[in-house]
Parts: sequence; structure tokens; C-alpha cells
Amino acid sequence: MLTTRLTDRFGLSVPVALAPMDTFADGRLAATVTRAGGLGVIGAGYRDAEWLDAQFAAAADAPVGVGFIGWRLAEQPHLLDVALAHSPAVVIVSFGDPAPSAAPIRAAGVPLMVQLNDLDEARRAIDLGAQGIIAQGGEAGGHGKGVRSTFTLVPEVADLVADRAPETLLLASGGIADGRGLAAALALGADGALVGSRLWATREAPVAPAARQRVLAARSDDTVRTGVFDIVRGFHWPAGYTGRTLRNDFVRRWLGREDILRAELDEAQRDYQSAVTAADFDVAAIHIGEDVGLIDDIPGTAEVLAAMSRDAATILHRLSGSAN
Amino acid sequence: MLTTRLTDRFGLSVPVALAPMDTFADGRLAATVTRAGGLGVIGAGYRDAEWLDAQFAAAADAPVGVGFIGWRLAEQPHLLDVALAHSPAVVIVSFGDPAPSAAPIRAAGVPLMVQLNDLDEARRAIDLGAQGIIAQGGEAGGHGKGVRSTFTLVPEVADLVADRAPETLLLASGGIADGRGLAAALALGADGALVGSRLWATREAPVAPAARQRVLAARSDDTVRTGVFDIVRGFHWPAGYTGRTLRNDFVRRWLGREDILRAELDEAQRDYQSAVTAADFDVAAIHIGEDVGLIDDIPGTAEVLAAMSRDAATILHRLSGSAN
Repeated sequence: MLTTRLTDRFGLSVPVALAPMDTFADGRLAATVTRAGGLGVIGAGYRDAEWLDAQFAAAADAPVGVGFIGWRLAEQPHLLDVALAHSPAVVIVSFGDPAPSAAPIRAAGVPLMVQLNDLDEARRAIDLGAQGIIAQGGEAGGHGKGVRSTFTLVPEVADLVADRAPETLLLASGGIADGRGLAAALALGADGALVGSRLWATREAPVAPAARQRVLAARSDDTVRTGVFDIVRGFHWPAGYTGRTLRNDFVRRWLGREDILRAELDEAQRDYQSAVTAADFDVAAIHIGEDVGLIDDIPGTAEVLAAMSRDAATILHRLSGSAN
Repeated sequence: MLTTRLTDRFGLSVPVALAPMDTFADGRLAATVTRAGGLGVIGAGYRDAEWLDAQFAAAADAPVGVGFIGWRLAEQPHLLDVALAHSPAVVIVSFGDPAPSAAPIRAAGVPLMVQLNDLDEARRAIDLGAQGIIAQGGEAGGHGKGVRSTFTLVPEVADLVADRAPETLLLASGGIADGRGLAAALALGADGALVGSRLWATREAPVAPAARQRVLAARSDDTVRTGVFDIVRGFHWPAGYTGRTLRNDFVRRWLGREDILRAELDEAQRDYQSAVTAADFDVAAIHIGEDVGLIDDIPGTAEVLAAMSRDAATILHRLSGSAN
């Protein structure tokens, strides 16, 4: 068992939180992560109040948190009240200004964690009094700025935290799929890890079988950061954000030809919607991290967390033994 | 002291090799790294036989290796013979096909290490029988493909090595500037680290004082990968390669406007050469890694290596103690 400030603060047995992945981090998956000793988090990014209520209901008595996309939450701020009514274990705000959410979250007595992609965002999150900050490297699946990598962002943010607000928890996000990654994240100065892709590829995650097969077959060289799926899905992400996805026929067709995609959007959207319905992942997106090549099985969530924790401990013991 | 397969194989006291940085990794810096317990490597990338002989002479009795840029070495293959005549401790081939060099290096009884940026290159290097492979993430300063990051590339290559040729040494490269990074690299499965930027910022490195000052002031958000300096310097890097450098006025002016730079090349080259002569780093390039924000002093080389090793050991002992 790995003991860190994250496990102490949240009463966990594994220093891992579930990344609030759209669609996949539902109430059921979040609850299984919590029951396995991690910190389960519902991904509320693109969802509505009804869905959110249903996910907290599905999590039942398991304490779970909730994660919002900042710029989307600004468009529908009432969702924060919906979430806070369920006394979430944590609220994570990613990709947008967390400031408007900070006061109501604090008033509800709920810890705020802010996910960030660069140092300016880290500084603002610390100044805002966030209880935790999540340094996300461009390795991460799904959205982010992709301007920094986990390996250098985590220690640089750790120095900032140590200097300005040492009680702030620091989580590493992006590329962490096994005990090696968890041990490395801790070595770089994090108190734990936010894990998406590895928990996406579990029995409990609501993933289409055809998507699972592609992820199992993929190597990490097969992912790419792009905005083409946002264009075709009609998601208006702010400038500078892209999503890391598996490279498929749709990406090969449109990457670098975004202007033409926008000009032919109606037809492309019809085709894309058909592909989603048909689970045709030559066209439909699979957002997944650069650690996809480290994922080659579909175990249960509890097994994933136990293996990460056990393997990280084994690695740290072994390396410690070779250091005099 | 950290003991790894790298320290065992090369008789080192610190599992760190000097990155063969153009201009900066000269005979003197390489020798100081070797004398401090690491593996010093001369950066012969753009240089000629006379320079190379002089660097080995400057290293005197300190065993040092030499690093070549693969596609440059293909243009002047005799440089390999010049290097092998000095019985280098290792030959590193980066950025190009190492295959033509493998036989003469093997015949000379010198270990070959291949630096690579993706899995296909890793597979080829292993099949070639390289004694070591260096997995370089896009965090690294200077050139590379920048398509993968250290955090995921190292464990994925470690799996490949374990599967195909477990005796092959694996070094991590890109983003490693302190004991945290060294401990993380080992946790991810590496036997050691190839370190550039942190050893660039030492008293012994032949660096212009004005460049040092910029590096000390920079944060990691201030670096960017670009090809604009290759264009203006007339270096014909193969497609897909860029160099990570500090963002300066020259980068701000030309990034995204490479076609115009090529059209106005004569004038730009005159201006650039003047800036280099004047040590004007608003224009002249400073190639440095994404770990630049972790560098805030100019110690001696020996002090850097001792601190990396000591801090990594301390971190590993502490984390091991929190793992039951």
C-alpha cells in the first residue's frame, strides 16, 4: 500500500483518482474506483442535470467526485449546484477559468481541484486556494493544451506549490497507466495520479467492444492531438485546445485540412453521426492517451488499481535497495 | 550512490551520460562528466575531423564517448573512423539510420548506442544489436521528432527491450534535470539518463554568459519546437525533425512563416550571422529542453551529478518507506 498526502487527505488506499472522462467516467465506473480504494470522479463535462443526478444515484453510497469542463460550466453554471447537492468528494474544474466556481464550492465545504496545462494556470489555481491541482501533460487522452509534458510540468508545478502553498495537493495527469508511471509521478513530486485511459480499458467502463479492440491493438505512436473531432461534433473549444485520439481514417482525411472540413460540415456531420451509431471507429473518435501502448488487457477496475499500487511499491523498494 | 546496469557496464558512479550537444559537449565538458562519475560524450554532429581530434585530445586520459547525427554522418562517413581511432567509450548515433555504422563500431569493439524517437526506430535499433538504446522524448532540447514524450516512450521501449533483447541498456532522454527526473526515469524502466540542458548550464560548458542568463530566467513554458533556426542556418534536417529552443524574437517573427523566411533567406542569414557574432539571443538560437524551468543555477558539473544522484536516492528511500 502506498501512503501519500492524497491517500491521507481522502482516505484512499491507492493514490489514484479517476479522470473525469466524458461518457466513460459515469456513476458506475466512478463508484467502482472508489470502492477499489481510489477516488472516483464522474465526468460531467458535456452533460446535463438529469444525467448528473442519475450518475450520483448510480454511484449509490460510494463517495465520488465530479469533474467539469470550465468553459462548458460557464455556459450552464447551475450544473455546479446540481453537483454540490450530492455532496461530492471533490469538484475538479479543467480547461477554463475555475474562479467563478471557487466560492460556491468552498461554501459547500467541498474540496476544489483544478486541472491545468501550464505554469500560469498553476499559479492562478494556487492563488485561488484550490485544495489540489492536477498537472496535465500533453500525453493525456482527450482534451488539453498539449503544450507541456508530464515529465517536466509536474516537478515545475511541485516547486511552485512548495514555494507558494505547500499544503496544496498535486496530482500528475497524462501518460500514467501502470505501476511504473505511478512510481515516476510520485518521484517527480506528485501526491498521486489522475488516470484516464487505463481505467477506460476496464470491464466496468461503458466502452464499445470495437473501441476496446482498437485500443488493445494500438501502440502509443498511433495517437495524435487534433481538433478535427471537435469540428465535426460541433464542440466549440477555445483556441489552443486539442484532443488526443487514436489516428483513424477520419483523422488521416481531415488533419491539416480543417478549413475544408468546416466548409463541408453538414455532410461530414451526417457521416460522422452514422459512424457513431454504427460504432465504426474508422470514423468515430476514440479519445485515448499516449500511454495506449502500455494497455494490452481489459481487467476489472479493482485489479488495475491493485496492480498499479503493488507494482509501484515493488519498483520503489527495488530502486531504493540499489541506492546507497 | 545509485547502482544500475548502466553504472555496472560502464564503471560509472552516476547513471548519467552527457548528451552529445553540438558545440557545448566538447572534449573538456565530456571529460569533466567522466571524471565526475558519469559517461562523458563529445557531440560531433556538425563537426569535422580536426575538431574531433582536438576534443579527444582535450579529454586527455578521461574515457569519453562520441555522438553523431546519423544523416550528417552519412554525408561524411570517414568521421566514424576518426572517432574510432580514439577508442571512444561509446558511439551514439541519433537521427538517421545507424545501420551503416554498426559493423565498423562492432569491429572496433566499441559499444553502440542508438538514440530514437519512436517505437519503429526502437525496434530497428534492437534488431541491429545496439548495446544501448536511448529513448528521447520531445521534451529534449535540440533536435528530435518530438512525436513522443519521455513519460510514455521509456516504459513502452522498456517492454520492447524486455521482450526482444533484455540485455540491451535503456537510457531515458528529454526532461531530466534533477534527482526527481533521474528517479522517475529509473522508475519508468530506464537504466540511466542522457542529460543535456542541465549539463549545458554548468561552469565547465562553453556557453555565452548572455545565453546562460536567459536560461536561468526562463520557465519551461518558454520553449518551443521549431525548424526556423535550421532554415536560417542552412541545415537540411530530414522531414519530421524540429529543434526545441527558447522562444525569442526570431522565433516569434518566423514561426508559421517559414515560407517567407525561405524567400528572404539571404538577408535573414546575414542578420542571423551578425546576431550570433554579437551574442544577441533575441535572434540567435538557444537550444534547450523543456526542463529549462528546473534550472536556476550554474554549478560545476561534478556538483550537478552528485546532487542528481544523491537527490534521486533520497527520493527513492523516502517513497520506498511510504510503500508497505
